[in-house]
Formats: sequence, C-alpha cells, structure tokens
Amino acid sequence: MQHIGQLNVPTRGKGLYDITAQVARWVAERTDGTALLTLFCRHTSASLTVQENYDPDVIADIQTFFEHLVPENPRLYTHTLEGPDDMPAHIRTVLTGVNLSIPVDRGKLTLGTWQGIYLFEHRRAAHQRNVVIHLLAED
Amino acid sequence: MQHIGQLNVPTRGKGLYDITAQVARWVAERTDGTALLTLFCRHTSASLTVQENYDPDVIADIQTFFEHLVPENPRLYTHTLEGPDDMPAHIRTVLTGVNLSIPVDRGKLTLGTWQGIYLFEHRRAAHQRNVVIHLLAED
Amino acid sequence: MQHIGQLNVPTRGKGLYDITAQVARWVAERTDGTALLTLFCRHTSASLTVQENYDPDVIADIQTFFEHLVPENPRLYTHTLEGPDDMPAHIRTVLTGVNLSIPVDRGKLTLGTWQGIYLFEHRRAAHQRNVVIHLLAED
Repeated sequence: MQHIGQLNVPTRGKGLYDITAQVARWVAERTDGTALLTLFCRHTSASLTVQENYDPDVIADIQTFFEHLVPENPRLYTHTLEGPDDMPAHIRTVLTGVNLSIPVDRGKLTLGTWQGIYLFEHRRAAHQRNVVIHLLAED
Repeated sequence: MQHIGQLNVPTRGKGLYDITAQVARWVAERTDGTALLTLFCRHTSASLTVQENYDPDVIADIQTFFEHLVPENPRLYTHTLEGPDDMPAHIRTVLTGVNLSIPVDRGKLTLGTWQGIYLFEHRRAAHQRNVVIHLLAED
Repeated sequence: MQHIGQLNVPTRGKGLYDITAQVARWVAERTDGTALLTLFCRHTSASLTVQENYDPDVIADIQTFFEHLVPENPRLYTHTLEGPDDMPAHIRTVLTGVNLSIPVDRGKLTLGTWQGIYLFEHRRAAHQRNVVIHLLAED
C-alpha cells in the first residue's frame, strides 16, 4: 500500500533543520513493518541531506563550507535579479540533492545512530518549505 | 504494479537538457493514482538533477559554476586518455548523481512549480544518453 | 514483496570500494523479474556513488579531487576533536550522498556497461561500514 502526504517545514533563513522526528512519526503512524520511505523537496533553493545529529559544530561547519564553495559573489553569476543569495542557493541545491530514499524496518527508519534527516535552507529569508513524503508499506 | 522502460536523450554536448515533459508523459500513460517514479542514468559522464525551469540564466550559471569547480586541466588528473573533458565529466557526475526518486500523486509528478528534471551532459561531444525509468503504480 | 537486509563493507581507510558483485548477488537470489533496489549507507563519513569500473585511474582521480575540494585543514573547521579527516569526511558525504535507487530488470541491475556501485570511505582508519539493502520485487 502506498501513502503520500506533505510536510511543511518553516525555516528562519540559511541553515540545516532537523526533520527526523517529524518524518519518523509520520512513518510510525502508517506502518510497523518493512517499507520504503521517499522524501522529495519541492524547491530549487532548498535541499535534503542526511548528516550527524550529535555535535552541532558539524552542521555549522557544513554550512560554512558551502558559503565558501559557492560564494555569494554576484560577479560570478548572470542570474542576480533575485538577490545575491539566490544563484548560490540553486547551485548548493544541485550539489546536495532534493530527494532521499530510506528503507524502513519494523516501522522504524533504518538511520544509523548518528544520522539525522535535514532540510538544508539556502536562502537568507525565512521560508515555508514543502516536502512530499511517500511510503510504500507492505499490504 | 511495476513498469520499466528506457528514455533516449540525445545531447548536443555539454549542458542541461529538460526531460520533464517526456517523463511526465510516460508516467501519465501508466497511472492516474499514487506512484513512485525512479530515474537512473546509465552513464558515468552524464547525470540527473532537478532545477529551475523558468529563467534559462539559472541553468547557464550552473554550467559555468561546474566548469570552474571541476576544471578541464589535464595536469590535475591521471586519467587523460579520453580527452580533457572526460575526467571532469566523471567528477561532475559524482557530485550531481545519476538517480532521482519522485513521488507521483493522481498521475502527476509532485514537482514544485519551478522545478524541471534535467539530464546534465558533461562531455563536449553529442551523445545518445540512456535513462532507465521505473514506476511503481498502485494495482 | 519487500526484502530487507544489510551488507557489511570492511574498508581499509580512504578510497572507493566496489560493492557491485555483492549487491548483484543479493538481488539475483531474490528476484528474476522487475524490481527496485535501494541502498542506504548508515554513516555520516562514508557515502555511496556510481562510477566507472574500468580504468582504476578514474577512481584514483576522484579521490584526489575530493582531497583538494574539501581539504584536511583544521583551520577551516570548528569540529576538529575527532581528527583532521573527520569534518572533511562529513562534508564529502553530504556532497556525494548516502542513498542510491537502481531499477532491476529480469533480475539484473540496470547499470550501464561501465558503471559500478562504490562505497566511498572518507576516514583514514579502517572501518566496518553498514549498508541497508532493500528490494521491492514483484509478487
């Protein structure tokens, strides 16, 4: 049986937002067996990633790295009308990806001990982000 | 029920090629319900990504960025026999990925308003690229 | 029908480890029809990628590139307690991803001729890596 829904993720500007608990709860309400979870972020300036959920410095360092890798320097880009953070946001989204597939075992996400699911907001302003959530459960 | 097929994507060298319409049509012919779409690019020098389908400058800037991030400089690489664009093409493929999973709702891809599906050709020469398309539809 | 299991991948430190044969065998033992394979790496410092399986120089060049792209320079990072290779390992994992979805046709992975599946170990030390493997087979 297939389930489909949407998660709303409010962001307060750039950063990684932990959505693991929200996702795990949605899954647990629908299956206690084997399943396949798919997440899909419906934006071109925010992405999804799996990373360490323990030391917040890891998340901060990831963000700093992307600031340097894809700089907010309008001279590098043609598409600048939507602000200096827009084109870097698109490129960071391409580099990190908008979809995740995670197997589910006995109703639980098979994440490793230190893994969390993050929405990676690449714009400076607060946004309401929308993530499609799909579950293929056993009938 | 599972459906499997192949999309042929002719490219005219480096660039991002919008395959959204072709994918959406293939899906619509097979389901009008909830489903899970998987795309898999069978190459090591072309990839798949989801990006903005509105301002073509975004796509052009993405391409320019990757030219700088992974330069065509043979002194950086050992594998140079297949031409200066080959090794950068492999690395750009690793950075952008060869597979996408997109949920389907009432027969339609759940893409956001500004999202398109692109094949990212990383070689200079024209190629025929082959993408496996898989759909898990409700029975 | 859904199948779920785990692959253990011992690594000897940094590098790309070809797990294609191990994955293909697991799949072939469970289906000879159409299916969808999902792999999920349960770590934040090792990832999964699909790349060329022919010239080993390609794999070596990919590794060299990531050493330069995400340098082991502690002055760049706040999270340095776990060693100079730890924070770069997290970032390289974000850039390359922890999950793969590959359609299966008549019991065989639909990989292209030159594609192999690799676990990308980003830490210097040897590790036992754990990959969840999920198969949606036709009933």
